Amino acid sequence: MSEKRIIRIGLLGFGVVGQGVWKNIEKNRQALEFRLGAQLDITQVVVKNTTKQREVAVPAECYSDDPSRVVDNPDIDIVCELMGGTGEALELTRRALKQGKIVVTANKALICEHGEELFAIAHQNGGHYFYEASVAGGIPIIKTIREALVANRFKLIFGILNGTSNYILTRMEREGLSFDATLGDARQLGYVEADEALDLDGIDAAHKAVILAYLAHGKWVKLEDIICEGIRQISGDDIAMAGQLGYKIKLLAVIARDFEANQLSVRLHPALIAKSEVIAGVDEVYNGVSVTGDVVGTTVLIGRGAGQDATSSSVISDIADAVFMIQGAPKPVISEEDEQVYRQLADGLELADPSALEGRYYVRIHVKDESGVLAKISNILAEHSISCATVNQQELEDGSALIMVTTHASNETAIAAAKDALSVEAIVLEQPVSFRIFEPGC
Amino acid sequence: MSEKRIIRIGLLGFGVVGQGVWKNIEKNRQALEFRLGAQLDITQVVVKNTTKQREVAVPAECYSDDPSRVVDNPDIDIVCELMGGTGEALELTRRALKQGKIVVTANKALICEHGEELFAIAHQNGGHYFYEASVAGGIPIIKTIREALVANRFKLIFGILNGTSNYILTRMEREGLSFDATLGDARQLGYVEADEALDLDGIDAAHKAVILAYLAHGKWVKLEDIICEGIRQISGDDIAMAGQLGYKIKLLAVIARDFEANQLSVRLHPALIAKSEVIAGVDEVYNGVSVTGDVVGTTVLIGRGAGQDATSSSVISDIADAVFMIQGAPKPVISEEDEQVYRQLADGLELADPSALEGRYYVRIHVKDESGVLAKISNILAEHSISCATVNQQELEDGSALIMVTTHASNETAIAAAKDALSVEAIVLEQPVSFRIFEPGC
Repeated sequence: MSEKRIIRIGLLGFGVVGQGVWKNIEKNRQALEFRLGAQLDITQVVVKNTTKQREVAVPAECYSDDPSRVVDNPDIDIVCELMGGTGEALELTRRALKQGKIVVTANKALICEHGEELFAIAHQNGGHYFYEASVAGGIPIIKTIREALVANRFKLIFGILNGTSNYILTRMEREGLSFDATLGDARQLGYVEADEALDLDGIDAAHKAVILAYLAHGKWVKLEDIICEGIRQISGDDIAMAGQLGYKIKLLAVIARDFEANQLSVRLHPALIAKSEVIAGVDEVYNGVSVTGDVVGTTVLIGRGAGQDATSSSVISDIADAVFMIQGAPKPVISEEDEQVYRQLADGLELADPSALEGRYYVRIHVKDESGVLAKISNILAEHSISCATVNQQELEDGSALIMVTTHASNETAIAAAKDALSVEAIVLEQPVSFRIFEPGC
Repeated sequence: MSEKRIIRIGLLGFGVVGQGVWKNIEKNRQALEFRLGAQLDITQVVVKNTTKQREVAVPAECYSDDPSRVVDNPDIDIVCELMGGTGEALELTRRALKQGKIVVTANKALICEHGEELFAIAHQNGGHYFYEASVAGGIPIIKTIREALVANRFKLIFGILNGTSNYILTRMEREGLSFDATLGDARQLGYVEADEALDLDGIDAAHKAVILAYLAHGKWVKLEDIICEGIRQISGDDIAMAGQLGYKIKLLAVIARDFEANQLSVRLHPALIAKSEVIAGVDEVYNGVSVTGDVVGTTVLIGRGAGQDATSSSVISDIADAVFMIQGAPKPVISEEDEQVYRQLADGLELADPSALEGRYYVRIHVKDESGVLAKISNILAEHSISCATVNQQELEDGSALIMVTTHASNETAIAAAKDALSVEAIVLEQPVSFRIFEPGC
């Protein structure tokens, strides 16, 4: 390995997200440091209790209960504020940004309430405030709006920004449960924040809507000036009735800009939305955001909106952007040695033999409609160790028939051989056609 | 306006995408230049025929039929290769990259066939090769994999990468049309490339799969080494049968990595995919990509995969990244004057009055089940100028009833007043509940 610059990171707070950042940087450290062209060192982890047992193993010397060892430490390149809340987090973020530091945060409440001040401090002092993880967890909505869709003006942004309420609505819909019964389950699963109003009264999602409105339109909106309604009033009857009419009920954030009137509408409320809309299909704890730009049209992003790993993926993405900023180049400078390390990684990688592909298949066989034809086809499939999951025979107008089969797990070689064997049978009228069944979960 | 650096751009080719880049930079120039902290100047447009009439008005002095005025011109900061093909485009891209230039491209065939050489040339000479627009049009899949999901290793990437074939499959499914009939329509709409094999035999999507495989795994795969099957064999019977079994048939690109065996499978073929999968719901000319990372879980991006505006949105996004790279900072340096211009833009922006919101509503009213109750409710709604689209009355076990109404266009004030009026009626048992109906198309 060549000598790479060491980037020193300080974590403020080491709860679920903080531990996720540590764990996931360790997990993919080699690939990550190659991509960044730098070494990452989490130098300090500031916690209230330095001796508490935690899930990830951190060297004792990294812990400190003194935030100044991160915030006021000239050796720290990147400050990650993962403590949450709007008290001490505000003080420490202010202090770090005043010193021109780069601060990465997942703290939506803090940005919503104090973003205008904090971005101004960053700007005045040459610091930077990164917040991908604050909206929609692992979904890169901030980067998408700010960078990927930089050519656009945004007529409409809407979506599902709170996973807990979406989980409750999904279970109410699927199982016909009441709000109270589902809430009980969600609490037991640990999905509901300690302050339940954040999830149930829409406040968490409204924080995120305010952040997106600023990002897309440069305007800070106050929470008290917008419609913010939660999900407590939604009954099973409402969901059933909506379903009958072709709708789902979702808790939607809406940021709509009328360019002619130069007006912005920001709101957060339950809404009936047609089942045919992609966002209506975003269920369980997933989040989804639909962005309509005047150039790109509508783009939808769906993914995990919360949780240790998804959120830390976004924090690490911000850390990566910060590293490029610190190094003065958005792309890593790759040394010959690095290139060799990476090549070794990719060189060991083999292209899988396409003929070894396994899975389920659909096969269509056009046959003469004679007695015993299905038995004959079945036998040929069985001879190739192909077991049928479903079989369907259909008469065609000309008196011939289609046999359409889906198989249990099989493979390319068996299917190809069976098709060849079938095609030479007198009862088979044309070369059978097969398609693979794709099951991403498998 | 303060003096900003002028970034000079040369376009090679001025067809659909090239004209889109010109048009859309002009359209949002003020916002774009503010975001970039630089002035954009499309200095040269290289075309075969400099006098041909085109849809966008370009000053005559910008045109040239000599590519060296872009490729070998030291004043040009960014070369956009939008001519397509693998002949002259290869030569010119090589020449530009050898001079350390930044080249932005939408040319998937060129990257697929010559990417390994071109990226090496860029790397050796300090040039850069940007290609967001080459895969999935306006969907920021390159930036998402490379930057937003930098913390991840990618177990599975799959999706729909060709809009034309997806349009054909969608119409076959919805209208029960044959492949040939739908193809005829697609041709008439101008959706099918001149070389039909690109769309119909999966070659276009396979090019994109090869690019994504390189991006995610650092390995160049040859088109001839992978399964590449198009949609010509799919019949209406297949689609109907798949539908009965709970599947849709989609032309899928699949990039699956087995980290234990260190094997990579790259393929492009029609597949049956469960309707419950988000990607199965991506219809018409839309593209969609599902990315499963080992940290973030599954993230899905859906959007326009082709077309002048969507593709130019991605080209402009690459131009923006190039501008940040040239200026040596990923964020614009904002002058006081700029700040004032931007503030004027945002300051003029008013927050819409929430009570002026208009739209359709769902209203649930819990009533005594007496004769004439529906008439009474209807009258009160009518008095508030609320017109019903659907009305549903349901008896409850305790003998009371629910009246559930959806309205035609109404507004917040009318709905609130009607709910207040309803709530004081003796037949109304509790405060009525209403939810907005959200129609993003409106």
